[in-house]
Amino acid sequence: MKRIPDDVIRRLPLYLRKLDGLYAKGEKRVSSGELCRQLRMEPSQLRRDLAWFGDFPQQAFAYDIDGLRREIGKILGTHEEFSAILVGPGKIGSALIEHFSFIVDGYEVLGAFDVSPERIGTEIAGVPVYDIAGLGDFVREHKVDIAILTVPRGPAQKLADVLVESGIRAIWNFTNEELDVGAADVLVENVHFSDSLLHLNYYLAQRNGETD
Amino acid sequence: MKRIPDDVIRRLPLYLRKLDGLYAKGEKRVSSGELCRQLRMEPSQLRRDLAWFGDFPQQAFAYDIDGLRREIGKILGTHEEFSAILVGPGKIGSALIEHFSFIVDGYEVLGAFDVSPERIGTEIAGVPVYDIAGLGDFVREHKVDIAILTVPRGPAQKLADVLVESGIRAIWNFTNEELDVGAADVLVENVHFSDSLLHLNYYLAQRNGETD
Repeated sequence: MKRIPDDVIRRLPLYLRKLDGLYAKGEKRVSSGELCRQLRMEPSQLRRDLAWFGDFPQQAFAYDIDGLRREIGKILGTHEEFSAILVGPGKIGSALIEHFSFIVDGYEVLGAFDVSPERIGTEIAGVPVYDIAGLGDFVREHKVDIAILTVPRGPAQKLADVLVESGIRAIWNFTNEELDVGAADVLVENVHFSDSLLHLNYYLAQRNGETD
Repeated sequence: MKRIPDDVIRRLPLYLRKLDGLYAKGEKRVSSGELCRQLRMEPSQLRRDLAWFGDFPQQAFAYDIDGLRREIGKILGTHEEFSAILVGPGKIGSALIEHFSFIVDGYEVLGAFDVSPERIGTEIAGVPVYDIAGLGDFVREHKVDIAILTVPRGPAQKLADVLVESGIRAIWNFTNEELDVGAADVLVENVHFSDSLLHLNYYLAQRNGETD
């Protein structure tokens, strides 16, 4: 398969979410124009993006909603199964564990890892909380695919080092810290709240400047 | 000022975070090459991005760390002050309130809004929790800049409608729902956990495909 540009991959979950929503409402077909209007996108952009994946079934310029969402799901690998652990089950970490099944299907959360003696040995939504001292061994023994990192910035890099050395395949990083995984073949996906808020902040400040 | 492309604005928080980190370590200057290496970027990209904002002080191809971080902060409006409310103080919402001062300076969280009788009348990190029935009036009376929306998908659009009608300026949206603000001049910034995880999922699935 051709190497698909990352910005196209970044937009596919948005399409999938929208199509899942239409499907849940019982709709069968959506015109390219209506889909683009709802997504606030140029039709040419959507067509170009979908063209990477071959011909989608269209009838009279309308997409088959269920067909298209299944196809995009297949591209994104939503039918695959992965194992996950969570490192740092504070409030955001616990919330992620509890809502995980609602975020994406196909992930099994094997355990959470904490430093706090009060949390170690308990469970969060059925997921056992282990001592962080055993993190490396656990990743090695269970061949964990993805680690969700929800610790403070301070210990973030040190824990990333442990995960990388233990053979983790991917890190979903909520720490607001850029992680350095060196030359290791480890995927890092960042959710930086601060970057998102600063982006919004820029446009708010711009508007203040215009009205001052 | 020229209209700066949004993808440039999206990268500025990353530069700022990195520069703040170097500054906190007591470093004074960083070469363009070293900065790009740490950011895993092409030097030409960084130069092009910074060129939008005029001449940054460089000496022998090194950036003045403090000068550059102050300049980027000014562009992003980090010196401005905004008022915020949070709608839906569940686990993620509460965590955001508690950590808000660590995310970005200059925001005052005026209140949180909930439907739960047990939460209404309490405080989260000093922030009062009000009945969601009073949301619209509160936004109108306090001229709130930004609403942080951390409710489930179900009520997300209805609450966005209330916020928009009440004159909110921006919505920071954690609901995994695309919000429709119609023709209103309201900024919407999305933090879609599911999109981020699906992006990672794609590359994990690709790798499985390669090794199968």
